[in-house]
Amino acid sequence: MSPAYDPENIFAKILKGDIPSHAVHEDEDTYAFMDVMPQAPGHVLVIPKTPSRNLLDADPAVLVKLIPVVQKIASATKEAFEADGIFIAQFNEAAAGQTVFHLHFHIVPRQQGTDLKPHNGKMEDAAVLATNAQKIRAVLASQAA
Amino acid sequence: MSPAYDPENIFAKILKGDIPSHAVHEDEDTYAFMDVMPQAPGHVLVIPKTPSRNLLDADPAVLVKLIPVVQKIASATKEAFEADGIFIAQFNEAAAGQTVFHLHFHIVPRQQGTDLKPHNGKMEDAAVLATNAQKIRAVLASQAA
Repeated sequence: MSPAYDPENIFAKILKGDIPSHAVHEDEDTYAFMDVMPQAPGHVLVIPKTPSRNLLDADPAVLVKLIPVVQKIASATKEAFEADGIFIAQFNEAAAGQTVFHLHFHIVPRQQGTDLKPHNGKMEDAAVLATNAQKIRAVLASQAA
Repeated sequence: MSPAYDPENIFAKILKGDIPSHAVHEDEDTYAFMDVMPQAPGHVLVIPKTPSRNLLDADPAVLVKLIPVVQKIASATKEAFEADGIFIAQFNEAAAGQTVFHLHFHIVPRQQGTDLKPHNGKMEDAAVLATNAQKIRAVLASQAA
């Protein structure tokens, strides 16, 4: 048994609009936004709107809608940041590094020869996050065109 | 543009049966087997049978079949190893840590207070891998019963 979902977690508040975020993509089922403590420039989080604590208790029907969006945002982020690679990570429970208990996929651009910053790093400036979100949105818009 | 898929990569050879592996699960579309250089006991890889280099060039229809299997194997592995958490990672291109160029998801059991071993660690004994695969298969079989 997984512990219960806490509806007061920070991503639930972001989904309700009670906490601001830098949006990259939104559709009926999914929301993507900039990680405020990026491990590299362009670090994005993709989450389902349906509550689940993590992958372990998610409805498979939710995952099936989420993963094509993870792919789409990963490709757009790679292009937006001219990244050499994309690291995707998904943590389940605190022992695995999970700190916010609403299912999320990390999408982190990687550049050859550049190490990731620790995930408990400092909060990024809002202006930088806004600029980086705009870069990804511009690629997504060009792909949709 | 992604580089082309190399049909001689090691996971393609595993799928063809040219290289042995310790199977955890197989269905029409998906294969799961023990990582031979585990970052923790119970480290499993889940791959689609359909060739793609990584997530970036995968057919979304393949991903939609793959992700529920990733979820199922993650849950079974957590139970089989009485893990406190599950770390899921997926690397795209060498700069992000990809070393085998056939799409794969890493499923790594985490125990509170235990660090992961480096992924370039030593090759695990085949007998240990066989035992660990059997533990996960036993949980999957009990869930199917």
